[in-house]
Amino acid sequence: MAVEIERKFLLKNDSFKSESFKTSYIKQGFLNSNKNRVVRVRLIDKSGYLTVKGISNEEGLTRFEWEKKISKKDAESLLKLCEKGVIEKYRHFIKKGKHTFEVDEFLGDNIGLVIAEIELSEENEDFDKPKWLGKEVTGIIKYYNSELSKNSFKNWT
Amino acid sequence: MAVEIERKFLLKNDSFKSESFKTSYIKQGFLNSNKNRVVRVRLIDKSGYLTVKGISNEEGLTRFEWEKKISKKDAESLLKLCEKGVIEKYRHFIKKGKHTFEVDEFLGDNIGLVIAEIELSEENEDFDKPKWLGKEVTGIIKYYNSELSKNSFKNWT
Repeated sequence: MAVEIERKFLLKNDSFKSESFKTSYIKQGFLNSNKNRVVRVRLIDKSGYLTVKGISNEEGLTRFEWEKKISKKDAESLLKLCEKGVIEKYRHFIKKGKHTFEVDEFLGDNIGLVIAEIELSEENEDFDKPKWLGKEVTGIIKYYNSELSKNSFKNWT
Repeated sequence: MAVEIERKFLLKNDSFKSESFKTSYIKQGFLNSNKNRVVRVRLIDKSGYLTVKGISNEEGLTRFEWEKKISKKDAESLLKLCEKGVIEKYRHFIKKGKHTFEVDEFLGDNIGLVIAEIELSEENEDFDKPKWLGKEVTGIIKYYNSELSKNSFKNWT
C-alpha cells in the first residue's frame, strides 16, 4: 500500500492565482465529528458527497470509509443541519513539474487563510518550489480542517 | 396535513403470529442520535436506508428529513460504526378491519419485549381490538426505540 505524505505551506502572496488550471468551490460540514463515526457532508462545485468514516466496533482497529454521491440540493440541505463550523473555500489546482499543488483559499470565518498542499510519495521526495510558497506548516494541528471548524482563523491571536 | 395518532400496546400472548400476513427483519442504529442532526441507519430485509433528520439552523424550527436507499452490504457496514444500542426486531404486519397492526418483536438486548402499534387518523377513532392485545403503553417514554437503545429491556427491573 502506498503511503501518502502531505506537506502544507503558507503562501507569500497571491501570485499563485494566475498559475491555476482549475478552481473548485468547496463547502463542507459535519453531521458528526466524533472520530468513531465521522459523518461529513461536502459540496464540490455542482456535486455533493456524504462520507462516513470510523473505526469498526466489531473489527477492532479496522478503519472504514464509505462515500456516496448525492445531489447538490441534498448537500445544501444537509449542510444546514451540520455542527457549527462549516468550512467554505476555493481550491486552486496548480501544476509544478510532476506534482500538483492544491491551494485552499478559505472563506467565511477563515477568510485570510491560504494553505498550499502537495502530496509526495515519500518523505524526502524532491519537488519544485514556486516563488509564492511560504513557511511550512505540516503537522501543525491548528491548520487542520477539523480544527478550523472549532477554532476559526478569525479567532486566532 | 394529516395528523398521525399512534397507539402502542403490550401483548397478552404470542397468538398474533399466526395472523400476520408479512414479517420483516429490521436492524437499526444511529451514527448520531443528537436530535439536531439524527443520522439513522436501517436495514429492512434486503434493503438499507440512511436517514438524516433534524432542525435546520438557518430556517429556525423547520423540521427536515432526508432518506436515501443504500445497499444491504453498505447498511451492514454502517451499522458496525453506530453508537451502542443497535436495535434488532421482527416486525409482523396484521390486518384487522381497515387497520394494520405492526407488532415489533424485539431481539438482542430487548428480547422478550413485544409491542403492537396502530396508526389512527384521529384520537377517538375506533378500531378492532384483537384478543392478544394487552395493556396500552402509548406515550410511555421507556418504550420508545430511541430509549431502548440507551436502556434496553434486559436492564429493566
